[in-house]
Amino acid sequence: MIRAGIVGGTGYTGVELLRILLLHPQVEVSVVTSRADAGLRVDQLYPSLRGYCDVIFSLPELDNLKDCDVVFFATPNGTAMLMAEALLELGVKVIDLSADFRIKDRQEWEKWYGMQHASPDLIAEAVYGLPEVNREQIKQARLIACPGCYPTAVQLGFLPLLEVGAIDEQHLIADVKSGVSGAGRKAEISSLMSEAGESFKAYAVAGHRHLPEIRQGLQNVARQAVGLTFVPHLTPMIRGIHATLYARLNRKLDLQSLFEEKYREERFVDVLPSGSHADTRNVRGSNRCQIAVYQPQGGDTVVILSVIDNLVKGASGQAVQNMNLMFGLPEYQSLEAVALYP
Amino acid sequence: MIRAGIVGGTGYTGVELLRILLLHPQVEVSVVTSRADAGLRVDQLYPSLRGYCDVIFSLPELDNLKDCDVVFFATPNGTAMLMAEALLELGVKVIDLSADFRIKDRQEWEKWYGMQHASPDLIAEAVYGLPEVNREQIKQARLIACPGCYPTAVQLGFLPLLEVGAIDEQHLIADVKSGVSGAGRKAEISSLMSEAGESFKAYAVAGHRHLPEIRQGLQNVARQAVGLTFVPHLTPMIRGIHATLYARLNRKLDLQSLFEEKYREERFVDVLPSGSHADTRNVRGSNRCQIAVYQPQGGDTVVILSVIDNLVKGASGQAVQNMNLMFGLPEYQSLEAVALYP
Amino acid sequence: MIRAGIVGGTGYTGVELLRILLLHPQVEVSVVTSRADAGLRVDQLYPSLRGYCDVIFSLPELDNLKDCDVVFFATPNGTAMLMAEALLELGVKVIDLSADFRIKDRQEWEKWYGMQHASPDLIAEAVYGLPEVNREQIKQARLIACPGCYPTAVQLGFLPLLEVGAIDEQHLIADVKSGVSGAGRKAEISSLMSEAGESFKAYAVAGHRHLPEIRQGLQNVARQAVGLTFVPHLTPMIRGIHATLYARLNRKLDLQSLFEEKYREERFVDVLPSGSHADTRNVRGSNRCQIAVYQPQGGDTVVILSVIDNLVKGASGQAVQNMNLMFGLPEYQSLEAVALYP
Amino acid sequence: MIRAGIVGGTGYTGVELLRILLLHPQVEVSVVTSRADAGLRVDQLYPSLRGYCDVIFSLPELDNLKDCDVVFFATPNGTAMLMAEALLELGVKVIDLSADFRIKDRQEWEKWYGMQHASPDLIAEAVYGLPEVNREQIKQARLIACPGCYPTAVQLGFLPLLEVGAIDEQHLIADVKSGVSGAGRKAEISSLMSEAGESFKAYAVAGHRHLPEIRQGLQNVARQAVGLTFVPHLTPMIRGIHATLYARLNRKLDLQSLFEEKYREERFVDVLPSGSHADTRNVRGSNRCQIAVYQPQGGDTVVILSVIDNLVKGASGQAVQNMNLMFGLPEYQSLEAVALYP
Repeated sequence: MIRAGIVGGTGYTGVELLRILLLHPQVEVSVVTSRADAGLRVDQLYPSLRGYCDVIFSLPELDNLKDCDVVFFATPNGTAMLMAEALLELGVKVIDLSADFRIKDRQEWEKWYGMQHASPDLIAEAVYGLPEVNREQIKQARLIACPGCYPTAVQLGFLPLLEVGAIDEQHLIADVKSGVSGAGRKAEISSLMSEAGESFKAYAVAGHRHLPEIRQGLQNVARQAVGLTFVPHLTPMIRGIHATLYARLNRKLDLQSLFEEKYREERFVDVLPSGSHADTRNVRGSNRCQIAVYQPQGGDTVVILSVIDNLVKGASGQAVQNMNLMFGLPEYQSLEAVALYP
Repeated sequence: MIRAGIVGGTGYTGVELLRILLLHPQVEVSVVTSRADAGLRVDQLYPSLRGYCDVIFSLPELDNLKDCDVVFFATPNGTAMLMAEALLELGVKVIDLSADFRIKDRQEWEKWYGMQHASPDLIAEAVYGLPEVNREQIKQARLIACPGCYPTAVQLGFLPLLEVGAIDEQHLIADVKSGVSGAGRKAEISSLMSEAGESFKAYAVAGHRHLPEIRQGLQNVARQAVGLTFVPHLTPMIRGIHATLYARLNRKLDLQSLFEEKYREERFVDVLPSGSHADTRNVRGSNRCQIAVYQPQGGDTVVILSVIDNLVKGASGQAVQNMNLMFGLPEYQSLEAVALYP
Repeated sequence: MIRAGIVGGTGYTGVELLRILLLHPQVEVSVVTSRADAGLRVDQLYPSLRGYCDVIFSLPELDNLKDCDVVFFATPNGTAMLMAEALLELGVKVIDLSADFRIKDRQEWEKWYGMQHASPDLIAEAVYGLPEVNREQIKQARLIACPGCYPTAVQLGFLPLLEVGAIDEQHLIADVKSGVSGAGRKAEISSLMSEAGESFKAYAVAGHRHLPEIRQGLQNVARQAVGLTFVPHLTPMIRGIHATLYARLNRKLDLQSLFEEKYREERFVDVLPSGSHADTRNVRGSNRCQIAVYQPQGGDTVVILSVIDNLVKGASGQAVQNMNLMFGLPEYQSLEAVALYP
Repeated sequence: MIRAGIVGGTGYTGVELLRILLLHPQVEVSVVTSRADAGLRVDQLYPSLRGYCDVIFSLPELDNLKDCDVVFFATPNGTAMLMAEALLELGVKVIDLSADFRIKDRQEWEKWYGMQHASPDLIAEAVYGLPEVNREQIKQARLIACPGCYPTAVQLGFLPLLEVGAIDEQHLIADVKSGVSGAGRKAEISSLMSEAGESFKAYAVAGHRHLPEIRQGLQNVARQAVGLTFVPHLTPMIRGIHATLYARLNRKLDLQSLFEEKYREERFVDVLPSGSHADTRNVRGSNRCQIAVYQPQGGDTVVILSVIDNLVKGASGQAVQNMNLMFGLPEYQSLEAVALYP
């Protein structure tokens, strides 16, 4: 059994990790930390876990985590970088769901995240945990930087086209809509149901932290600089991301075949039949990305629809997918749940 | 492997059966019928099932179902009673999620359901599939009448008190709130999001079909006639039932202990700690009923809160729980999913 | 023109007062206070008010309010009682939307609200602002205690029956469901859309602050002690309260006629035709209470359905209705908006 | 008093017309037709209108409408074109909320709407009822073609830039999100709350009927052909449209000033301060369009956010705005309601 620890177990990605890991046949969740709730039973905070988990929140200290085989950081940005090095030295693998190790350019990271990086030496080692791109490196990795939710949906949608150089990579547009759980379990007025319910808005149009992450990922595939306009929106639902991607085609090609072939072997990326639309409800609670591709009116603009559950493929599910790869387990273990529809 | 058939696979209880059964290690879903969609792939109608199910909808005819070991009826009322006898004669077990075999008093059934019963001889044989009450009979049964969603939540809440005769059984009140999936996948104006969203209403206050079913179940436990006022409400969410039950206590007793002891061995009924409230979100997607019990202000009125997911413990999950019992499998097989929170 | 001030203009009852008063032909909103946002334009916080309001938030100080004809307190409990006396002495009328002056029994108030009353001498003078009960006193009042949202819906539903002594007043049950705006514009995790959305729960079953207020109102009408079980619930919508009320009838009577006659002259209480259900959507944004009454199965239990918009008839609309009465204006002025459906 | 008739009073635009017109001081709603509900009181179908409307649904026949001064068509496409000519001949002004007279190119209309136009001679006369573009013609018109909901939001957002020729008009992108009331009050499975709730999807990506209408409107302003990719989405809320518009700038200009100056005199178009986002909730129930404009990262892509309430500025409110203009009334009469927030 793999002994897993979760640092920051009180947020939505933390409880989602628990939902998945507690039923994983190869994993024992031995530690869940919370600075605020240390001493409390986890299932007292989360009654959905009653009967599945008798762990008590402990403090996020090295001593509590040192016997783990793997530690997940489901923490705000800036925490994992403080503890990762010590854990790695103890032989504990680290899977960070926060943004600490996602951006290779340290200065870029510090600009967008507004703090100094505490563990710059590890940035280069960290593997960006998008299995559809980096599967082999993930298998060898000690430290995984899990992709953000928006970046997962956007990259999986643009990759097939960038790989073959079929679009004008200087003018990509990603119009992306997220459910409110993406804002986390934080007491903020803007996330109240009275504010976020029955309303739709864009936010951070001037610049969102996921922009450099997406750009970096796209550039790695395009092997050149890309220009991206990224507009995130808040949509009045709890789970789900829907990315609507636009690019200009620079030549004719069979888009449907391109996407189907690219993802034929990917268990967690499902290219829908031609003419389909992608509903977020069809991936709710599942680790799957569903993609549809269009060329409206036969023009030169390609439209890609890419949906995920932001807490699963966009966070905790993908983190477990990475863990499975790192430990030589079947990639899909404990990730086979069918989406909860309706 | 148990070969399972689903008659009426296009409604919400049908697709929920598929969600559960497709991952059941002992079951192969070999037939799914739909009169309207025969010939269509199931996963074309339900893209959430892509990769899990390559069955094609067939017509609901005996010939298509005769090789099944068990057939689930996820049909409107009035269908199962037409086919059950023939299936039973072929040795096929039948689990009916509709109301056809729930009411033992045929005239009462015909009054509430407005049709003649087509298979009255089977009514007596049918076992009411509430495992917490009838587990042993279920194990021996050929024909199961799965409880309705409201009846499941209400009965599990009242049973402990009726068994010990601690309440005035003549004046029970069940104020119950359901998510809109309880209305099924039917094109009706009242179920449109523009109608049912952002609004709350009672309906069928003058009399709802689940009233005689609940009353029958309560009377079996109370061993006398009971008086029940049952008011169902529609609440603007998709899944979940919350029953708030009121009764007058006729003596002092330790309510918390009574409930905890009654359900100590029940995997799918979870009595919450004293002082807790029961949220429907904590059972969303799970086969569990969570219950809390109160005696406000120390008065003589007991208040019981009982929540289920109407499509799982209130329908398809409970149906699979019955199947597991009928086939000698672990009762909880394929029913262990943790609730999807948030 | 009546010069109106609003203390605590940043919460939902504050902005709702603005929505109504800014279009009132006899009112000029001259002061809106906010401790946190003093100096900011009101319409910067609330873009819905752009073009209707050029007021700047000022500090909640007597000096800023002394030229008003009327001051509304849309504040948390405990604020109005600190300022009311000084305002009254300056000749300013006071309409308190908080609970400070609702309960006549000071000790009862202090027990439920957990603080000492700062202005006990005013409690007796304050008129409980339910126009359907106290219209004449309201016209003469200097100080109004606006009813709570739950108390408004529950009292309007029970009053006709208590007045004629037709029900067992010792065992009243009020099962009430509220939208999330009732929790106010406060950064609390339990009010996040990810928590309150797609879920239903009861809360404060052991005892809610509106219980003594409702009991006091019912007792005034019944002219004797009443016994009440009050269970509030949170329903996943923004606006609306639905009260489902249960009582045992002690004699036969024509319920529909009783209710229709009681409220025939009331512009803001609408008794629906026999057999109707009351949807909260039909009063959304309006100052109306809609009521339906049932005697299910002809038994001895009466069921009353009573719906309001918690922010209008349950708070700010009713406050303006009180103001209109106090200043000799038509009771319905600026309160005639048709509900926003869908 | 203007005698107004509404043909097709049972849909959402019909009841919204009633909500606005019943409080209009210059209008008497004398006729409301419904083929299905003729003979029924309007307020029996819509209890929100009780006390405001004692009209009975009549059949949609000329004889019932001939005494009106103006008739609104809140009908499915294909109805207004059958009756408009006869009404005009009788001197009745016609305001069509459907698409019958929106497209000047008859063949284009017939291609997208799949039927033959029944009144082609009127197409040229019909004035496209977007007051911000065609105010003077509207004042003189007998026949108004009210813009669609998507076209209103998209055109108001693009117009300032197209007028000055500042963008590449060949590659416009309109990513637009609508609440579900846009689908109307029709019993369709895809509009059920269980389907449309808690989910987000694009639809009609291959081509939507509003595409030619938007293109025509943009071309009239740009005075040349434009290329437009238009992707509509369904978002889980009832009211509201959020258009996110993308275009490439062909020169430097002060975007904020351009928009503010363009709309300075427009009561129903509100350009938000620089750095704002536009929330649909801030226009819910109001006739206003709110717009924000961005140039992310100082690049050459302009992003415009444009929000309306699809049933008000996107349909019935704009229809009344047109009526006010046609009858020489203040343009804003009965359209001054503040948005319902929260």
